[in-house]
Amino acid sequence: MRFQTKIEKMVDLTELMENEVFKAYASYTTIILSKMMFMSTATAFYRLTRKVFANPEDCAGFGKGENAKKYLRTDDRVERVRRAHLNDLENIVPFLGIGLLYSLSGPDLSTALLHFRLFVGARIYHTIAYLTPLPQPNRALAFFVGYGVTFSMAYRLLKSQLYL
Amino acid sequence: MRFQTKIEKMVDLTELMENEVFKAYASYTTIILSKMMFMSTATAFYRLTRKVFANPEDCAGFGKGENAKKYLRTDDRVERVRRAHLNDLENIVPFLGIGLLYSLSGPDLSTALLHFRLFVGARIYHTIAYLTPLPQPNRALAFFVGYGVTFSMAYRLLKSQLYL
Amino acid sequence: MRFQTKIEKMVDLTELMENEVFKAYASYTTIILSKMMFMSTATAFYRLTRKVFANPEDCAGFGKGENAKKYLRTDDRVERVRRAHLNDLENIVPFLGIGLLYSLSGPDLSTALLHFRLFVGARIYHTIAYLTPLPQPNRALAFFVGYGVTFSMAYRLLKSQLYL
Repeated sequence: MRFQTKIEKMVDLTELMENEVFKAYASYTTIILSKMMFMSTATAFYRLTRKVFANPEDCAGFGKGENAKKYLRTDDRVERVRRAHLNDLENIVPFLGIGLLYSLSGPDLSTALLHFRLFVGARIYHTIAYLTPLPQPNRALAFFVGYGVTFSMAYRLLKSQLYL
Repeated sequence: MRFQTKIEKMVDLTELMENEVFKAYASYTTIILSKMMFMSTATAFYRLTRKVFANPEDCAGFGKGENAKKYLRTDDRVERVRRAHLNDLENIVPFLGIGLLYSLSGPDLSTALLHFRLFVGARIYHTIAYLTPLPQPNRALAFFVGYGVTFSMAYRLLKSQLYL
Repeated sequence: MRFQTKIEKMVDLTELMENEVFKAYASYTTIILSKMMFMSTATAFYRLTRKVFANPEDCAGFGKGENAKKYLRTDDRVERVRRAHLNDLENIVPFLGIGLLYSLSGPDLSTALLHFRLFVGARIYHTIAYLTPLPQPNRALAFFVGYGVTFSMAYRLLKSQLYL
């Protein structure tokens, strides 16, 4: 309820973007989605430098016929990036939805910031731990921090806003 | 248009959460995203109890060198959970986006509730049918109910709000 | 700031849907999510016509015991559709989140429409290039146009709305 009440002037959409919690959500979400998009570039980079492709048309430039087909293979490094990317999807999609609804449910700014910062930090660390790779339980801990943060927001939502 | 018009008092964000359709969307979305997150735990559970891993660093605790590498394998049960998880992603992401826009487009509360309940019920049943597994067409029907609900909301949106 | 200021009348949710940028976002998002959902149908179509299944219960109708198990296999065509579907997920999820926040950040209508049209056109062309398949760099270009559009919106958001 950190809105000034203004007299006789209509809201517009940009009001949403004047809400500090929503602004924070917008910033952290944009950062973590951009990070996720970087995984596509990483996959493309390893595919090209290691000549490892999934589609015949992708390796047509490296030779004709049978000569090109030898590049249709899998590679540990490429598969690792793809697993990290899929794990991002599986975890960032719930954050996207639950975080949006949480931001609209009027949480304290400091609590909301704590959630967003922990989630984004944990997911960035998860990627580092996955791609380096760091020994376990680095990646597992990063995963569970992000997971816990999302559940904490879901719990607050269901406790305060349930309408079934 | 189930909003009271109030005189000389400004909207705030929490108004969105006072809209019953939006509250219902928030509740059902939080439930179905939490259910989807549960799939990660199920995968981790089967990986640990069956000692089936995708990354060398994950099975380092089960032995050294070649002894650990034998746990880098696939397992029917783990792959089944992963397929169910991916199917969730493929279907819950459209619901997340289309459902949000649909909720903002001013549908009847009862129609909206019918859509949300059917979708969430169908997806939960889909998971049960996939993991048990139940004989077909249990899973197929659950899939098509969720699919049809999402298309029904998309159809309403495009019919009433198209702006290209 | 293309909102009329109205005197002494309260906002309601449908106001969001009266914003032209938001309406355009809603329309293009609904279209591209529906297109993504079509990939599920394409996978099911190829699985059924080619008798290629991932789960034993799916091919129980084609024979008993060992006779049915021969349909548990992979197929180039099915795997191609699944890769296209996953690529859609990886790219449409960032558009969903970043596009929503971008729409709420008050961009020019014409700039926003350019972003949405390019993205949706590029992703539809990506699917055509993937499923035909067209020779490279058709698919790569389609991918990078969609990628660039999403980053352009992310850049604008972070430049104007950063709140960390």
